[in-house]
Amino acid sequence: MKRSDFLTDIVIGMSDGLTVPFALATGLSGAVDSNSIIVIAGIAVVVAGSIAMGLGGYLAGKTEIDHYRSELKKEYEEVEAVPGIEKKKVRTFFANIGLSEEMQEKAAEEIARDKKQWADFMMKHELGLDKPDPGRATKSALNIGLSYAAGGLVPLSPYLFVDTPMEGLKISAALTLFFLFIFGFFKSRITGLNPWLGAIRVTFIGALAAGAAFGVAKLFE
Amino acid sequence: MKRSDFLTDIVIGMSDGLTVPFALATGLSGAVDSNSIIVIAGIAVVVAGSIAMGLGGYLAGKTEIDHYRSELKKEYEEVEAVPGIEKKKVRTFFANIGLSEEMQEKAAEEIARDKKQWADFMMKHELGLDKPDPGRATKSALNIGLSYAAGGLVPLSPYLFVDTPMEGLKISAALTLFFLFIFGFFKSRITGLNPWLGAIRVTFIGALAAGAAFGVAKLFE
Repeated sequence: MKRSDFLTDIVIGMSDGLTVPFALATGLSGAVDSNSIIVIAGIAVVVAGSIAMGLGGYLAGKTEIDHYRSELKKEYEEVEAVPGIEKKKVRTFFANIGLSEEMQEKAAEEIARDKKQWADFMMKHELGLDKPDPGRATKSALNIGLSYAAGGLVPLSPYLFVDTPMEGLKISAALTLFFLFIFGFFKSRITGLNPWLGAIRVTFIGALAAGAAFGVAKLFE
Repeated sequence: MKRSDFLTDIVIGMSDGLTVPFALATGLSGAVDSNSIIVIAGIAVVVAGSIAMGLGGYLAGKTEIDHYRSELKKEYEEVEAVPGIEKKKVRTFFANIGLSEEMQEKAAEEIARDKKQWADFMMKHELGLDKPDPGRATKSALNIGLSYAAGGLVPLSPYLFVDTPMEGLKISAALTLFFLFIFGFFKSRITGLNPWLGAIRVTFIGALAAGAAFGVAKLFE
């Protein structure tokens, strides 16, 4: 695994892990007067979220690999059983990117010369499936799951050190919005978007979710 | 929007919305003796999650459109400013899919005849970016956000009709695991995977997350 892949996982996991526990703690701060309930509820959500993300991603990665294999097998069977239809699909691809009719024909002939090359081509350009990296998807999911848990602890930890939920909320909000901004910045930079706009977007969503949770919890109190 | 797109959004949103509120309610059922705290905490999480998913997806969709436009502008500039380098990238693409050197050259020439066609080709096959549908991403995000909220209400509603958290938990668990199975089934079928295995996977992750939340909440009680 490349160093940047690892960093990407950490940044995505932390960034996603901040929002929901923050909103939960904020919502409960307006509705209960015990810090321990907030911490217990928060930890329940952090544990559940990191399992859903980590294990969910891990199993999804495994499934994706199986899916790729079974589709590849089907493509091998198709180029064997109905080469005419499959060659026509290759020509259609070349027509769509703008090659002349003569070139479509010739290029399709060249692709079809080698069964492996042909099946790989159909996987990528007919079905839009990239060959999954067996190690990457699963490791990545575990890194994201763990970082999600680490992110979730940020909004909860202040409640451990103060006496009332409202005191906890002030420190939690300051800390979490700061972290949302930082991780929103790096997450956007990694995905090639404007980092400042991304940082503002992530922070805004986090603040809005927490504000809405606070309002709704007050309403239902 | 096609009918199947709409159904896809509903199924994905509901399926994702079930897990975390279910785990939170389960965890709290082992740690508190008031149904109203469970419902308030659950609603806070449902509101936050659906804002994060709905609004997050909406804004991400808008960002994706902007990103596509700015990259497309760059590609137009590049095919104008450094046509040699860009044509070499087109040849490399054709080399990778297995065309002969002569065909690589000719195909690259044909692509490069038309600037729009050339820039579109670079977007798709150099950068791997698909043209985003302006309406689809945003509508989809709102559908997913609303379905996420609807999904989250499934594990919470039983607590409104019974006296103690443990009674609520029994009905909530039965109801939620049933829904996880159903939505896991259809979600997998939509994404082209084995629906029975997918249903089992989604149900298993939901049960494990809830079990872990219950255990951890008991521990911290």
